[in-house]
Amino acid sequence: MPAHPDLASPDPASIEALDAADPLRAFRDRFVLPEGVIYLDGNSLGAASSAALAELEAAARQEWSRDLIRSWNSAGWFDMPVQLGDSIGRLVGAADGQTVVGDTTSINIYKALHAALALRPGRNVIVAESGSFPTDLYMAEGVVSTRPGASLKLEGVDAPAIEDLIDQTVAVVLLNHVNYKTGELRDMAALTKRIHAAGALAIWDLCHSAGALPVELDVANADFAVGCTYKYLNGGPGAPAFIYAARRHHENIVQPLSGWWGHARPFAMEHAYAGAPGIRRFQCGTQPILSMRALKGALDIWNAVDMQILRQKSLALTDLFITLVEARCGQYGVTLETPRERERRGSQVSFAHANAYEVMQALIERGVIGDFRAPATLRFGFTPLYTSYRDVWDAVAVLEDILASGVWKEPRFAVRSAVT
Amino acid sequence: MPAHPDLASPDPASIEALDAADPLRAFRDRFVLPEGVIYLDGNSLGAASSAALAELEAAARQEWSRDLIRSWNSAGWFDMPVQLGDSIGRLVGAADGQTVVGDTTSINIYKALHAALALRPGRNVIVAESGSFPTDLYMAEGVVSTRPGASLKLEGVDAPAIEDLIDQTVAVVLLNHVNYKTGELRDMAALTKRIHAAGALAIWDLCHSAGALPVELDVANADFAVGCTYKYLNGGPGAPAFIYAARRHHENIVQPLSGWWGHARPFAMEHAYAGAPGIRRFQCGTQPILSMRALKGALDIWNAVDMQILRQKSLALTDLFITLVEARCGQYGVTLETPRERERRGSQVSFAHANAYEVMQALIERGVIGDFRAPATLRFGFTPLYTSYRDVWDAVAVLEDILASGVWKEPRFAVRSAVT
Repeated sequence: MPAHPDLASPDPASIEALDAADPLRAFRDRFVLPEGVIYLDGNSLGAASSAALAELEAAARQEWSRDLIRSWNSAGWFDMPVQLGDSIGRLVGAADGQTVVGDTTSINIYKALHAALALRPGRNVIVAESGSFPTDLYMAEGVVSTRPGASLKLEGVDAPAIEDLIDQTVAVVLLNHVNYKTGELRDMAALTKRIHAAGALAIWDLCHSAGALPVELDVANADFAVGCTYKYLNGGPGAPAFIYAARRHHENIVQPLSGWWGHARPFAMEHAYAGAPGIRRFQCGTQPILSMRALKGALDIWNAVDMQILRQKSLALTDLFITLVEARCGQYGVTLETPRERERRGSQVSFAHANAYEVMQALIERGVIGDFRAPATLRFGFTPLYTSYRDVWDAVAVLEDILASGVWKEPRFAVRSAVT
Repeated sequence: MPAHPDLASPDPASIEALDAADPLRAFRDRFVLPEGVIYLDGNSLGAASSAALAELEAAARQEWSRDLIRSWNSAGWFDMPVQLGDSIGRLVGAADGQTVVGDTTSINIYKALHAALALRPGRNVIVAESGSFPTDLYMAEGVVSTRPGASLKLEGVDAPAIEDLIDQTVAVVLLNHVNYKTGELRDMAALTKRIHAAGALAIWDLCHSAGALPVELDVANADFAVGCTYKYLNGGPGAPAFIYAARRHHENIVQPLSGWWGHARPFAMEHAYAGAPGIRRFQCGTQPILSMRALKGALDIWNAVDMQILRQKSLALTDLFITLVEARCGQYGVTLETPRERERRGSQVSFAHANAYEVMQALIERGVIGDFRAPATLRFGFTPLYTSYRDVWDAVAVLEDILASGVWKEPRFAVRSAVT
């Protein structure tokens, strides 16, 4: 990686030099990005790639339209959840056979929590973060509702730090690797070790770290992990999620979403459930093949990506963004919410602003797409495969202009839409 | 509808006359059917339509690629599960606001069973059919595993008839409207009435009846229903499933797959779950939008379909098939498994044959695609929107030839593939 420009006063020429020397530069051409847009929301919905669109078209025109039911065998539909699981496994430090694609992150959290509780009989407490992405907590509530005696304790409510909640009553701790709102990165290895020392199990939600930075599930000795594929992995809107279970747990996995795809002999049409060996036991029902085929195309791109280089660029992009925004927009009431230390940061940067909603709407109107998170966060995602240094430079210029001009105060920017 | 040909001895001319007079004839052109294939497996995977492919392409090229995250609002992605739910509702006799699309049939059975058990406190028995599509039973097992005291009783194991199992201990009865294997159609209204008389609730699995025949959920006073969209509804491989809950239950619905899409305020990012009003409470996580957009195209076709006419053609097709197969192939050991009475039959016909697997492989090689169901069933689905009387005539001719020649005895037809 090139040395940083002088971040105290970067200029367009130094930004251009950074892009010219970017070892990931060629990947941008694999994505279909709209004209006139600086897209800093790949942490919410990743961009489409030519590969994903080509796979989708093949799935629709050849596999479905022409080959019809035969494609379950001839196009490998049936094994795709396991094969794509292995592809994702390679990106998150999981050896083959421990990751499977299917259902949603929410559903997979439910499976993992039940499996973890079954592995720790006599323990009834689930620990999670009050700052968690909410669905993790809602699913934990759902699990608690089905298990007499079980309870949920939250960091930020029941104790200030997660470590204070981890004791001998705890069966499982559910953690976000990177926080969806602040972008804070947890130390997976250290925290998993701390959890194991108390005899509990760790579930890691990788929604904001898979494809954003190197993840080492096996090395960290994680027990379970879940994540979505439509953010940094670019699998397409609502693409199926994934679940990881460490091999040492496979033999004893019990989870109640015991559908036929997780059966040892799904086509023997037996009355009684008998779980398939290995990670397949986390499968449940028939998966959305068209969405999964787009995901396959998106994942193929990652075969050529060095995750260490990805991380270096990610940090360079976020460093640059923080520096530029603080230097040029600090006077307009924006305050950094993301940890400044590199080792505590994912691939997004969040700034607080009292009128974050209106400011984000004004940015979007000018073609700079980030997102708003209630109550007052401007969130910007940096996706090293297709975000350039020039994007960062230009986005900050637009933000500065919006804040300096006060245009965001115009009433049209305050109109809320269904999804914010 | 035209009168039947003389079924004792129909000839090609009378078959041609039937197709010429078919009021649904024009629908066939809306589907993309491969050359040289007679597709009698739309009850496993429905055919692609031009409308579904066009919607999918718009979703991929415009909504995802160009408009990116904005499409959650601008393309109506967020409300699609409820809007498509209403579209399906119109096909299964459900007034608006009672049906939502999402997840899989298996997952939706889990939600419905939990919701039903919560509505009948003090009752702990789930009744189902041993001949049910297996995943229904596996999911019921999963529910039982999370509810101390709950148990599962099966028609065909614990008593010969389902009616014998329905007593005051029963909370809910889970029934297949049309049996996946035999094609037998249950009397929804009568059975629901019998279940309600015992104080229990009825869940109807519509996988093999939605889009195959008129269904009247509201009229039958059904409590819950689930179904898939990739069979007769032609939504595409693994397209998202649906769930129906009668409006009278909405206020009291509790189900443990309580993800953020079922929250009253999903974007307020609250710690605690608060269920959305109405059918939205059955939503859980982010849905596969590409698959759902193809489904939208497929469902649009149904706006122009009269379900009574569909049923008449379905019965005429299956009558013809039964008559022809029995007349021409009866001597080769094929035996009707589907009820002969029209009012007890869905839109498929199953025949038993000792070597059903091999015979079906030989049929597929000749371009007649039905499917095999273990241990010895030849299953043929008739989809009135794109199956012609000529298809039936030609398929039987091929079956007769295969059985008469004994070609199915060649070893290559005995090789089993992953999905059978």
